[in-house]
Amino acid sequence: MQHFLSVRNLSANTIETILERAEVIGGTREQHTGRYFAANLFFEPSTRTKMSFVVAERNLGMDTLDFHTETSSTAKGESLYDTVRTYESIGADLLVIRHANDNWCDELGSSISVPIINAGSGKGEHPTQCMLDLYTIKQEFGAFQGLNVAIAGDIKHSRVARSHVSALKTVGANVYFVNVPGFMDESLDIPSLTMDEACTMCDVVMLLRIQHERHGNGACDTTSYLEKFGLTIERERKMQNHAIIMHPAPVNRNVEIDTRLVECDRSRIFQQMENGVAVRMGIMDYLLAERSVFV
Amino acid sequence: MQHFLSVRNLSANTIETILERAEVIGGTREQHTGRYFAANLFFEPSTRTKMSFVVAERNLGMDTLDFHTETSSTAKGESLYDTVRTYESIGADLLVIRHANDNWCDELGSSISVPIINAGSGKGEHPTQCMLDLYTIKQEFGAFQGLNVAIAGDIKHSRVARSHVSALKTVGANVYFVNVPGFMDESLDIPSLTMDEACTMCDVVMLLRIQHERHGNGACDTTSYLEKFGLTIERERKMQNHAIIMHPAPVNRNVEIDTRLVECDRSRIFQQMENGVAVRMGIMDYLLAERSVFV
Amino acid sequence: MQHFLSVRNLSANTIETILERAEVIGGTREQHTGRYFAANLFFEPSTRTKMSFVVAERNLGMDTLDFHTETSSTAKGESLYDTVRTYESIGADLLVIRHANDNWCDELGSSISVPIINAGSGKGEHPTQCMLDLYTIKQEFGAFQGLNVAIAGDIKHSRVARSHVSALKTVGANVYFVNVPGFMDESLDIPSLTMDEACTMCDVVMLLRIQHERHGNGACDTTSYLEKFGLTIERERKMQNHAIIMHPAPVNRNVEIDTRLVECDRSRIFQQMENGVAVRMGIMDYLLAERSVFV
Repeated sequence: MQHFLSVRNLSANTIETILERAEVIGGTREQHTGRYFAANLFFEPSTRTKMSFVVAERNLGMDTLDFHTETSSTAKGESLYDTVRTYESIGADLLVIRHANDNWCDELGSSISVPIINAGSGKGEHPTQCMLDLYTIKQEFGAFQGLNVAIAGDIKHSRVARSHVSALKTVGANVYFVNVPGFMDESLDIPSLTMDEACTMCDVVMLLRIQHERHGNGACDTTSYLEKFGLTIERERKMQNHAIIMHPAPVNRNVEIDTRLVECDRSRIFQQMENGVAVRMGIMDYLLAERSVFV
Repeated sequence: MQHFLSVRNLSANTIETILERAEVIGGTREQHTGRYFAANLFFEPSTRTKMSFVVAERNLGMDTLDFHTETSSTAKGESLYDTVRTYESIGADLLVIRHANDNWCDELGSSISVPIINAGSGKGEHPTQCMLDLYTIKQEFGAFQGLNVAIAGDIKHSRVARSHVSALKTVGANVYFVNVPGFMDESLDIPSLTMDEACTMCDVVMLLRIQHERHGNGACDTTSYLEKFGLTIERERKMQNHAIIMHPAPVNRNVEIDTRLVECDRSRIFQQMENGVAVRMGIMDYLLAERSVFV
Repeated sequence: MQHFLSVRNLSANTIETILERAEVIGGTREQHTGRYFAANLFFEPSTRTKMSFVVAERNLGMDTLDFHTETSSTAKGESLYDTVRTYESIGADLLVIRHANDNWCDELGSSISVPIINAGSGKGEHPTQCMLDLYTIKQEFGAFQGLNVAIAGDIKHSRVARSHVSALKTVGANVYFVNVPGFMDESLDIPSLTMDEACTMCDVVMLLRIQHERHGNGACDTTSYLEKFGLTIERERKMQNHAIIMHPAPVNRNVEIDTRLVECDRSRIFQQMENGVAVRMGIMDYLLAERSVFV
């Protein structure tokens, strides 16, 4: 594998290999070695994903190159390709990219030789988020086969949902959507549940963030969202003892989930963030190890 | 001490201990060890405080995590608490925070386990600035007992003045305010002097910056400020031989102080900046040393 | 040499010495030593120059301090001098500055003691870009004497052109301008060529970027620019076998150059970026080596 751009084409074996590598290498902190530069090119706002990558890179002993849309040459109209080639030319050994364009991966993947990791492609994919969620589930349950996973919320505008359906099915989990009118993606053929059904029967209730910034004109009205489709205290009580709550964050408190549940016993929300560092270390280590075979 | 949020509750002994630690550790530059991450979360503009922290952290061998309000998830409406918990989850070992809210320290102090340093809380406090000023005074005079310190300028909108009154009294100095109409804070019971009196009788003349950005609608008219309340060449000549000039910077040249005095012999303005690095190293070292006792 | 502010006063010998040092030191990557801090103060947008400096500094084992105009104290009205003195006070050992003012070098050069490198001074100079272009030419042809170099494009608004004319003449090359109406700088006494003549007779065709952001009200119309004055496929075919194409980038594709030529065999555009790191390492190493003699 040259780049890490999508989880859709990954085999169950490759997914397990990367998760195992994350488990081994996560938690280590190497001294800066000066051997590699990672460039983090985020063209869309991010705190946790970007910082998670920076920590992962530094833990691997890499140096990091930052990028600021407002103060960069993209302000002079430079294309993504030219910006990326610039970073490659000045010495980046690894590129982490988030961009609003759904299709940037296709455009760059074939023309850039240093490894690229997709940190978000428009409404398309967010494969490292998917991997960290798989890591969190495996950490909890040991295996995926036969697990029931409900994905609830703004599926239509989420780049997480698409990746997850593909990867969860690959590793053997059963995926359900919670039916929220206006938020469904009919192109995906996934069985629907109500939120109450999801809470009662699923091992994992994965909440998605309402992507206000992707809704075009007029954010949706969320006044009764929690009650109708969100995770209330009442619904949480119906969950099975071993079942867990997940959310990619940032959380809209009291919309997708009652604020009192964000850090409750069965919530893995901040654990997911912690796991994000380990998983990104695993992915980068995997790419760079593969690469060194050819160098 | 878990966090460093205020100087108001510090004993004279603790202040002296930190200043001594700063003196010992300041000036050293360790190689990056990869052991600690410091996250610098500045929600308000800053050059010198932020960079001073970054240099201090790197000198201690720490790695640093940056934060940009405009490109972060706070742009998606994330709360301070959730942002801070995110940084804690991904691996920050120390948090340096500046935020416009006067009360953020109270809200975060009890719920976050990694050490937090207050780098500015609205109009509330700026305790590391206070410590570096104490360090500068001690460097000059060796002790605080009986020293006369005048604080002149925009006391009302300053987060420096409040901290200073408390800490200077704790270590035994006599504090005076220079009476500038409209800039006084009547809630503080401090004797007043005119600027001429302050220059004649005080060992330290500490000028404050006019906080235009905190004055709400309409910046104040500063055309005659220097002449009436600022440090002119004439007033500087009345100062005692051993007396020094201080200013937390950035300076409004020819408003608080005649531009020709900014780098004069008795000015410690750039020395204060230099000392800021040492003092912040001392504070961080103190917090992390305390912490390791419990870990 | 204390600072590196201009190429106009450099002897051929000094230029050659720096280029040789770049050749020796470029390509090395030292571990972070914690000995030096470089501060990169960019008051104007930049990707490649800024990142090139950061990589060069890190390759030399230096630590880097970043600067963000929007979130810094310049937002509170601080002057360039005070900002620079601040960075000097908190521990910067080297300053890299880009600022829109044409004359900032004159103002700072005599009052700051740490080495300053000019990374762009308004429409004035961009001496490190000049050095990397010289490096690229020398890498190609081995020597400068008698080489014909055409500079084509927005000479009037370019800070590259002025530096290049001076330095190229110093090292013995023949310089020509391509005559684009409205883009000429009559104050420079340089022979003119048409773009066709330049392509036929020159060893180096150096294209300049149209500086839309410096044209004041109304960007120029570029619809027929490529055909009239740019490097088309037809013109490229007229170039001599050994002749090369250069451009400081970012490129306005299909304006200054046909997009299909940007990465053609004779293009050195991305090679220039790669060389930029080596040359900046050479310049910094040269300044710091000189400095240590006096320390």
